[in-house]
Amino acid sequence: MNLIDISWPISENITEYKNKKSIKIIQTSKYKKDGVREKLITFNSHTGTHIDAPSHFTENGKTLDQLTLNKFYGLCKIFDLTNVKEKITSKNLENLDIQKNDIVILKTTNSNLQEEGDFVSDYVYLEKSGAKYLADKKIKTFGFDYLGIESNQPNHETHKYLLENEIPIIEGLRLKNVKQGKYILSCFPIYINNADGAPARAILIEK
Amino acid sequence: MNLIDISWPISENITEYKNKKSIKIIQTSKYKKDGVREKLITFNSHTGTHIDAPSHFTENGKTLDQLTLNKFYGLCKIFDLTNVKEKITSKNLENLDIQKNDIVILKTTNSNLQEEGDFVSDYVYLEKSGAKYLADKKIKTFGFDYLGIESNQPNHETHKYLLENEIPIIEGLRLKNVKQGKYILSCFPIYINNADGAPARAILIEK
Repeated sequence: MNLIDISWPISENITEYKNKKSIKIIQTSKYKKDGVREKLITFNSHTGTHIDAPSHFTENGKTLDQLTLNKFYGLCKIFDLTNVKEKITSKNLENLDIQKNDIVILKTTNSNLQEEGDFVSDYVYLEKSGAKYLADKKIKTFGFDYLGIESNQPNHETHKYLLENEIPIIEGLRLKNVKQGKYILSCFPIYINNADGAPARAILIEK
Repeated sequence: MNLIDISWPISENITEYKNKKSIKIIQTSKYKKDGVREKLITFNSHTGTHIDAPSHFTENGKTLDQLTLNKFYGLCKIFDLTNVKEKITSKNLENLDIQKNDIVILKTTNSNLQEEGDFVSDYVYLEKSGAKYLADKKIKTFGFDYLGIESNQPNHETHKYLLENEIPIIEGLRLKNVKQGKYILSCFPIYINNADGAPARAILIEK
């Protein structure tokens, strides 16, 4: 069994969506002084590798704790779309083997962007026709390799096509060293009550 | 496949180790006003279901990101010790099927304690002879069903026997509804650089 980490490491220096600067990490206990190490950690619910719940962008959508756990574990398909520039439309998806209940992860050139420093606003994004295509296919969960998936499309339609169909969105995956193929994904968000989003550790399991 | 959540839900009301009161959850964006929901979350690195790294209690111990990922995934054995009062010693463990590289989880009456409200200081704990027994067996990872494992033993020997042998400790499991037996455990901590500890979602996978 081989475990592959596809998570975005959290530190005070990491890139945040639109440079929010939400993260603070304070060493509250130090070994030499206290004989123990502890930190106090602050972040936005949509930091690093994290999952968007339907409630993030829909009025009556479910929170993460209301979704079935199998949204976050199981067979996933990673598709290499590093040839795509600017945006992913339905045309870029229609020849791929995407089936009902798949966890679909798209690898783009975003995986080459740095993990620290300023937010890159012209990342490759999922255009609304691509999101509609995935929602119509009734996939289980969608994963992507930047801190947003939408770019600046009006009215957040890309998010809404997915979230209104109870397809949670894993943002902030790191796929530079991962090949297209089938894997088992484990990507459970930490358990925060009523979460509109929460960090998750994303791991691929190869058997 | 059946997924069983054995995680402690995080909210502002949950019990914290020795009533630290570290947790703040602020709704920074609201749907009616902003068209989106987001939260700002603050907690101690040892909150809810979380994993202690060797660096938590040992001077030169590894941080979570320095441990191999398979510490957090694989075959685990849950042993029912709900008959034990006060403390678990080596005598309570020596007749159990504990082998090298097992993920060992002990279920005690702690699983009946409330998840909210004051910290209970007289929880059932792992006495240092029990920790030494598990370390000598070279188990892979240890899991327990309260927010500490040590009680007030001098010099934190229970933690040190485990952590000095690179056996990470999963604290804050909830096992009330889980039977003794073998499972696959997925319990990856969120990826925080140099973490002495971090929250994790603990899920049992039954096949």
